[in-house]
Amino acid sequence: IRTRHPLEVIVFANEEGGLYGSRALSGELPARELENASHSGLTVREGIRRIGGDPDRLAEVRRAPGDLAAFLELHIEQGGVLERENTDIGVVQGIVGIGWWDVTWEGMANHAGTTPMDQRHDALLAAARLVQATNDVARSTPGRHVATVGRIRAEPGAPNVIPGRVVHSLEIRDLEEDTMRMLFERIRAEAERIATESGTRVSFQELNWIRPAPADPRVQAAVVGAAEALGLSHRPLPSGAGHDAQSMARLAPAGMIFVPSVGGISHSPRELTRPHDVVNGANVLLNAVLRLDG
Amino acid sequence: IRTRHPLEVIVFANEEGGLYGSRALSGELPARELENASHSGLTVREGIRRIGGDPDRLAEVRRAPGDLAAFLELHIEQGGVLERENTDIGVVQGIVGIGWWDVTWEGMANHAGTTPMDQRHDALLAAARLVQATNDVARSTPGRHVATVGRIRAEPGAPNVIPGRVVHSLEIRDLEEDTMRMLFERIRAEAERIATESGTRVSFQELNWIRPAPADPRVQAAVVGAAEALGLSHRPLPSGAGHDAQSMARLAPAGMIFVPSVGGISHSPRELTRPHDVVNGANVLLNAVLRLDG
Repeated sequence: IRTRHPLEVIVFANEEGGLYGSRALSGELPARELENASHSGLTVREGIRRIGGDPDRLAEVRRAPGDLAAFLELHIEQGGVLERENTDIGVVQGIVGIGWWDVTWEGMANHAGTTPMDQRHDALLAAARLVQATNDVARSTPGRHVATVGRIRAEPGAPNVIPGRVVHSLEIRDLEEDTMRMLFERIRAEAERIATESGTRVSFQELNWIRPAPADPRVQAAVVGAAEALGLSHRPLPSGAGHDAQSMARLAPAGMIFVPSVGGISHSPRELTRPHDVVNGANVLLNAVLRLDG
Repeated sequence: IRTRHPLEVIVFANEEGGLYGSRALSGELPARELENASHSGLTVREGIRRIGGDPDRLAEVRRAPGDLAAFLELHIEQGGVLERENTDIGVVQGIVGIGWWDVTWEGMANHAGTTPMDQRHDALLAAARLVQATNDVARSTPGRHVATVGRIRAEPGAPNVIPGRVVHSLEIRDLEEDTMRMLFERIRAEAERIATESGTRVSFQELNWIRPAPADPRVQAAVVGAAEALGLSHRPLPSGAGHDAQSMARLAPAGMIFVPSVGGISHSPRELTRPHDVVNGANVLLNAVLRLDG
């Protein structure tokens, strides 16, 4: 293909989700992360050497904002929306922000045999009510946000002791920072209501707050135009997972193209993309690049 | 004091709840348990030596059923019922039975960012609903039974992954075996309803089933008579915890006397029994022994 501007194709192999390549390009990869051990048992530094790279020259790949005219990333949807709706192309609106908290419940540990049901301050019962309330809040609020409790620990954690303390995670993701804040406030209000009703105390510790990264409207428009030109069905979609486009957005207008993944499965040996979806994705990528180039 | 029958006073010091003394007397203490390490760091065998006993002669203390005319045990209530109701004496109806299960929920682990709320099979959400249903079933059924979830583990247990598998404990205690079974069946029915509604699978593994040990009616009557003769208020009460009377019941008609413990606290440096309650308990014990001796 012939383009007016020089065209670079960058293949990021981010099996472990570390997004090392794009962060090296955008200057967001601290040198200490090279010493992190990956699932393979090698450090990132060793892994770069193993595939023929030179980790000591990593700083040389860094690009300056403005070096690139635009960045487009083609990826499978790591979810089942496109497949379920039988849509060919997802036009990514942006990458969701992530809020992440530890939620701590303090009740009173006591003998499970001798403490009557009406005299308990059961931290796990309170936490269980919030796990459910978190789901209820997320589902009853219109939108594509998600809220998840993935980790929980009850103390002392014995079958014959009423839990006196429970710590669990809370994660909220959305494309709009305001929605993330609103969901958190609703969940916190539920938690405080539960604490009052159950005679427990609850506290939230914010561990992380990653702001959403909206896709550039010009790039989104190019993807829409490409899909329409090719006669493919398309819909706007947030990306619930982190992607290289998030870092590349620091350097250039960035956007993404999603194609359906069978069963919405990713990061699994069962991940499968149907050949015609691979072809559709590649054609939309090419067509969108030519539009941005025009 | 002068009694018609020989009177033995046995002081069991069971700080660690092992009930070693009474089980040695009733022949329920397997030799291998002597090798168990206690919280002190010593094995039970070493502990017996330390206080001047001879663990090799433990079999000699064993009594035969019928050797004893009756057994009475004085103990603090390990709960707050007597104190709250301002009652002097608890006439123990028996020691509750204990049913103990592992409950396993199988959902589907998935990416918390990319799996929409309405496409999740969240094992922790289902388990949380059962934690609440367990409490609801126990509290809505009249009686003094208890049901407890004290331990929970979510897998894979990461904040950004929807839990695919959760294992938690379930413990049910009551004085009536039929009530224990009925409560379990109600909780299991709730679990199956939750599993159907949430697209998860649930299974129960029974780990232990200790039958209730009712106190002998003659011994209970002697305790009631003693409390009335002394002008003390009294009420029937189950024992939610295990006690030596449970093993001694194999040898003789057995029963227990409870006195109030401040705040219902036990097995804690904060445990406190008020002097007048100690006196009341000792007087009821003496009076009841004399009644049984009569």
